[in-house]
Amino acid sequence: MIFRQLYEPLSSTYTYLLGDEQTGQALLIDPVITGMERDLAEIHRLGLKLAYTIETHIHADHITAALELKRMVGSRIAAPAHDHLPCADVGVEEGKPLSIGGITLQPLHTPGHTDGHFAYLLNERIFTGDALMIDGCGRTDFQNGDADALYKSVREKLFVLPDETLVYPGHDYNKRFVSTIAQEKARNPRLGGDKTLEEFKHIMANLNLPYPKFIDYAVPGNRQCGVCPPDLPENLENYCRQITQSPQG
Amino acid sequence: MIFRQLYEPLSSTYTYLLGDEQTGQALLIDPVITGMERDLAEIHRLGLKLAYTIETHIHADHITAALELKRMVGSRIAAPAHDHLPCADVGVEEGKPLSIGGITLQPLHTPGHTDGHFAYLLNERIFTGDALMIDGCGRTDFQNGDADALYKSVREKLFVLPDETLVYPGHDYNKRFVSTIAQEKARNPRLGGDKTLEEFKHIMANLNLPYPKFIDYAVPGNRQCGVCPPDLPENLENYCRQITQSPQG
Repeated sequence: MIFRQLYEPLSSTYTYLLGDEQTGQALLIDPVITGMERDLAEIHRLGLKLAYTIETHIHADHITAALELKRMVGSRIAAPAHDHLPCADVGVEEGKPLSIGGITLQPLHTPGHTDGHFAYLLNERIFTGDALMIDGCGRTDFQNGDADALYKSVREKLFVLPDETLVYPGHDYNKRFVSTIAQEKARNPRLGGDKTLEEFKHIMANLNLPYPKFIDYAVPGNRQCGVCPPDLPENLENYCRQITQSPQG
Repeated sequence: MIFRQLYEPLSSTYTYLLGDEQTGQALLIDPVITGMERDLAEIHRLGLKLAYTIETHIHADHITAALELKRMVGSRIAAPAHDHLPCADVGVEEGKPLSIGGITLQPLHTPGHTDGHFAYLLNERIFTGDALMIDGCGRTDFQNGDADALYKSVREKLFVLPDETLVYPGHDYNKRFVSTIAQEKARNPRLGGDKTLEEFKHIMANLNLPYPKFIDYAVPGNRQCGVCPPDLPENLENYCRQITQSPQG
């Protein structure tokens, strides 16, 4: 299997490219509209054809490339069924594996950052989206975010995976690329060790984070599977411009 | 392939267990004498037979379990040919793959921490020993250590691997388990980014680390493939006692 971890610098998002050499099919987990041309070039360079884009959740910090990729190369859109997106071709549900080419992802419903959030397990890898990040997790104060639910998702769905399982997060803001379940259990400052639900809720309630500057554009745009808002203020125009960088950013 | 990352807490050493389900053969990279019984129990639990132990280098902070494992279960000992250990069954050399069961390791000579140091490449994983650690590297002030050589080893042998290659280090002192080549290139504070050889040498010459408390016992013990010194002072006796912990420590 071909595997690429692609970085989008504006929102510090990781897009994951998985390709099956046998069938020539590829999928992208969480493609970003600004990195779309770079991702397509990489897929082309590898001699693959993009069959699917798969979302972990409705993002608030970037616009997904799902719809534009569907228009350009005919890829199908998989997104959590929970979110009832009319633009999705496939509604992701736990217990319904996603098989694309020779690649089979096991979707795990991991609500808390958003109520429709999914992680995807692929053998020894778990793509955790914003449910679990390296030494962190996604915030829980928007989009039906719920610290109780996130604690339960991480501890009961992710921390039960084998220790060596590789954790590939949806973002990292410090140039870290990968972790393991053992590592997050051991040292995640919010969710690891013997952190109780009450401690986690206290941490999440006191992060004092600013209002997400792009959320009011991103969420409606992503509910349409990736539409750039026509009324984007000048200071946010970069969120719909192509990046011109190497695969690793 | 079966893969386990086992942690020895006294020297913060990672031992890697690789097993081939088809042939039932297993190998250990850098087994530690204090963790030997735990490692053997894990191998037994997995229904495997230990065929080989493989050293990255002559360790200064712990005693290898290679010789004791050979005595107990008949495993063969692979160690860098450069070190001319009469007790080794196989002398590791670059360009001579190590094939054990269905597992093939590509040895990469990576001197600098010690002059005989090897890293082992297994598909998308590199076991880097003490040449490259997460956000760090081994010290270069003993055992023919050489900062010039280590810089060259890391930049020319390791940083040329694909970005997604998983870096499994010989130690971590902060409960981190894995990194990638992209991550170390991006943020290793000694060797990453645009760090020059001169900057690296300056860093390594000014670490002000204490004299390694176990080195005078470990090096001669490990030159015999793992002999516990008979004259161990009381405060170092733990270095030859079994740990009684779970596989992850």
